[in-house]
Amino acid sequence: MKTNFSTRQPNLPLVQLYSVAAEPPSLQDNTADLDRLKKALRRSLPNNRIVIPYNRMAILAESFRKAQFRGTAVINSLPHCVELVDFLANPPEVLPAMALDLGTTHLEASLVDLVSGRIMARATRENPQTEHGADILTRIHFTAGRTGRQGDGLAVLHRQVVGCINSLAESLCRQATLAPGDIRALAVAGNTTMVHFLLDLNPYHICREPYIPMINVPDPLHAGDLRLTIHPAAPVWIMPSVGSYFGGDLIAGILSTGLDQAEKPCMLIDVGTNAEVLVGNRDWLIACAGAAGPALEGGVVEMGMRAGPGAIEHVEIDPESGKLTYTTVDNGPAAGICGSGMIDLMAGLYLARIIDIQGKFSSRPPASPLRDNLTGDKASKSFTIVPAEKSANGRPVLLTQVDLDALMRSKAAMYSILTTLINQVGLTFDELDRIFVAGAFGKHIAPRQAIILGMLPDLDLSTYRPVGNSSLAGSETLLLDQDARTRSLAIAKKITYIELNVNQEFMIRFSGSRFIPHTDRALFPSVPFFNDA
Amino acid sequence: MKTNFSTRQPNLPLVQLYSVAAEPPSLQDNTADLDRLKKALRRSLPNNRIVIPYNRMAILAESFRKAQFRGTAVINSLPHCVELVDFLANPPEVLPAMALDLGTTHLEASLVDLVSGRIMARATRENPQTEHGADILTRIHFTAGRTGRQGDGLAVLHRQVVGCINSLAESLCRQATLAPGDIRALAVAGNTTMVHFLLDLNPYHICREPYIPMINVPDPLHAGDLRLTIHPAAPVWIMPSVGSYFGGDLIAGILSTGLDQAEKPCMLIDVGTNAEVLVGNRDWLIACAGAAGPALEGGVVEMGMRAGPGAIEHVEIDPESGKLTYTTVDNGPAAGICGSGMIDLMAGLYLARIIDIQGKFSSRPPASPLRDNLTGDKASKSFTIVPAEKSANGRPVLLTQVDLDALMRSKAAMYSILTTLINQVGLTFDELDRIFVAGAFGKHIAPRQAIILGMLPDLDLSTYRPVGNSSLAGSETLLLDQDARTRSLAIAKKITYIELNVNQEFMIRFSGSRFIPHTDRALFPSVPFFNDA
Repeated sequence: MKTNFSTRQPNLPLVQLYSVAAEPPSLQDNTADLDRLKKALRRSLPNNRIVIPYNRMAILAESFRKAQFRGTAVINSLPHCVELVDFLANPPEVLPAMALDLGTTHLEASLVDLVSGRIMARATRENPQTEHGADILTRIHFTAGRTGRQGDGLAVLHRQVVGCINSLAESLCRQATLAPGDIRALAVAGNTTMVHFLLDLNPYHICREPYIPMINVPDPLHAGDLRLTIHPAAPVWIMPSVGSYFGGDLIAGILSTGLDQAEKPCMLIDVGTNAEVLVGNRDWLIACAGAAGPALEGGVVEMGMRAGPGAIEHVEIDPESGKLTYTTVDNGPAAGICGSGMIDLMAGLYLARIIDIQGKFSSRPPASPLRDNLTGDKASKSFTIVPAEKSANGRPVLLTQVDLDALMRSKAAMYSILTTLINQVGLTFDELDRIFVAGAFGKHIAPRQAIILGMLPDLDLSTYRPVGNSSLAGSETLLLDQDARTRSLAIAKKITYIELNVNQEFMIRFSGSRFIPHTDRALFPSVPFFNDA
Repeated sequence: MKTNFSTRQPNLPLVQLYSVAAEPPSLQDNTADLDRLKKALRRSLPNNRIVIPYNRMAILAESFRKAQFRGTAVINSLPHCVELVDFLANPPEVLPAMALDLGTTHLEASLVDLVSGRIMARATRENPQTEHGADILTRIHFTAGRTGRQGDGLAVLHRQVVGCINSLAESLCRQATLAPGDIRALAVAGNTTMVHFLLDLNPYHICREPYIPMINVPDPLHAGDLRLTIHPAAPVWIMPSVGSYFGGDLIAGILSTGLDQAEKPCMLIDVGTNAEVLVGNRDWLIACAGAAGPALEGGVVEMGMRAGPGAIEHVEIDPESGKLTYTTVDNGPAAGICGSGMIDLMAGLYLARIIDIQGKFSSRPPASPLRDNLTGDKASKSFTIVPAEKSANGRPVLLTQVDLDALMRSKAAMYSILTTLINQVGLTFDELDRIFVAGAFGKHIAPRQAIILGMLPDLDLSTYRPVGNSSLAGSETLLLDQDARTRSLAIAKKITYIELNVNQEFMIRFSGSRFIPHTDRALFPSVPFFNDA
């Protein structure tokens, strides 16, 4: 599988190579091997304290001597020092590093060459922890439930995530004809709880008021600390978090959109199981997060799935003819429907008046071929998107009233989060220069359909910018760019975080948002309003 | 066993305690636990980068929370950062640390309270590596001989030294009613090869021209790295070395004598198996080292032993009456004779003309009761110091011609080293303000007798200052005093090291020194000269 990936010019990457040519020792110059190596390297790094970790001493000294005191030093560029970790007789052509999006449902990784900035391979795995809970909360309870707060549950989840990263490393290396031990660095962006699982830290207090993580800004560690199969001296750099519900994945989004450097205020929306939203510019950053429900990520909804092969990602309904067309992610037969497809479908069904402003299947749908797709009685009504004979697996792809209800809650939560936040910062939506929509959701979503549902504010469509998997992109940037590493820490410090779960205003707004598009029609002037009630 | 030990006021010790009172987390302040702890600690340490090692994260966060965010932080004060390693609900009364003299023949340790500076206990062990070689060179060959350069031999010696340190830690803790895990730091001064054994580093090139160690200035490591039984997060601070034959034990001597801060030039002599000598002041430091032979440390010489119980440490011979008196270290019956005793004896026998200027038992000794102590014929002559019936073990304490020859070589080597060095720096002996004599040898030696033998220069006796076990004292200083740690690194950088083993001048001087006191009588005006040849 050959893919063209983007290439960014590295600027002081996390691991760096320095050419070293030391004078060989002599009776006149009996400096010890490692002190000699440090001294020679200091010419290239005069302002850094160079430290050799204990477990690298012997191998460094041996290889420096074997290479006759000339070759390439491999260093980890850490905030408090430069770690000298290896010495190679010849400069390597590539210096592979791994970027990781540590997601709740999926882990996505790329192999980045720190010499050229080239992306060499990509790989994805379902998060194996899913067996112990589809969502983060269930997994936190799993750690607490197994054998108490420090119990086995945490160890299980920790081992699973480490195993999954090792498996990704293997896959990446297979694609690039390398070995996992060749991977010299790992940058990780994930939500706060996933980072706790990775670090084997107890997440107990994350989901309990006042929602306090053990750590938001871990110091860099080594792959060997986590028993990863990549190079044991590889630095593991973890994107900082801001709070229990505002993790490194979002900081990654800020990094890769450059929101922290923007002059005019912008917004960043990341919808996973949780909706995390941030507004700000180069001077200030205010964030909040709230449970948007897993409906948009392929959870809960009966035929829901992630945006992958077989997932219906777009649905179009001609309101005149009632003709329904759809496309799947891979253009193959449909097996289910992902978040963006559901939003399209629901918006189309609303415009075709098959569902009403309360998000219920209409008891009096207008005459339309779409009526044929409706089956079941009031309580168990469902809408067939793809009949059994045309689907990928011989089962129809359906949307049920239960699904609709879940989606309504998600869209209401989403809009409430956005309005609560914009209100808190004293702005209105039309003062936003850009709205970045991150995540798989952002990549596939049609903002117009989300506006029709009253999920996103009714703004000019050019305001919306999809940013794809910014978690992975942000990790890649951490690996490649020292400024980005500095910025990530500055961003984490700068963000003011508002806790929504306890915000009265939010609860009021949530109630108002449980209509299509909204109880306050004036907020959505571009959306047709049908009051059949 | 109660002993009174000295107490020095700690001044930024290697491990420090800081009182921390953080605000408990709330919905308004949701800083993560470890970030909260760092933030609170930063008030006390505003200019330091605070780093939490990965393996301390979980335990720190748990104990900080359990203590309700108030208590005492334990930090390791490293050159490149402050390591936050523990949190205690209540300030401990003592903060025990271990100082270690990592000697070739013996390991000597003390338990230092970093809070008060009090020495809480002392302990000594024979170096178990002795079974694989009495001297360093034999042990280096042992590491190379077992299974090649990286072979088992090194692992054996490494394990032995680690085991011996663990045993010392246990003994110290037993005396102080503590557990080894209570020991929060370790400072080590030892010769370069012993440090290699401790760090499991290959010493192969130390004894091979051009005599290059793997490392002279190791970065601080952790006790856990070496599988020591003291606290795993305890920093292990190793006194830097300057060369293969000029180790941290000598830097310790410079530290504890303050030679690096002296205005006028001083000399430091440390005689172990090797003689290491340094001359300098606050502006410059020049050192050399040479094999003085093990004769002075209780090796080689038949009845030789270290200055311990049963060792004759002083001998007096009345040249008129020929009466011999001696004292042992513990004032008990004699079992052998240590370096200082041998020097006294030899000087006395020279003045009594029992041995001649070449260090041979005289073929025509003058009439004296001492003649009765001589037995054997020319080839196997020996002098009985203590008859069998008066000794500790029923065997006579003897001095043989072979012993005399070894001592002659040692004293010649010693004087040659001193003169070669003083000549190299363009000084004469009488320009020295002080001569510090370190080690067990320095503690017991009578400089006058050493002058008679032509071992030490013929100077006013007030010039000579014994400094005892400066290796251990220097390690204690490292633990207690940040300035000392800084000075130790500055000293190591500042020392110019002269390799004597390849110095032509040294060889010529060595030949001239193989007489009592010297071929050049003018150098020892105070010593009587008897030319019987």
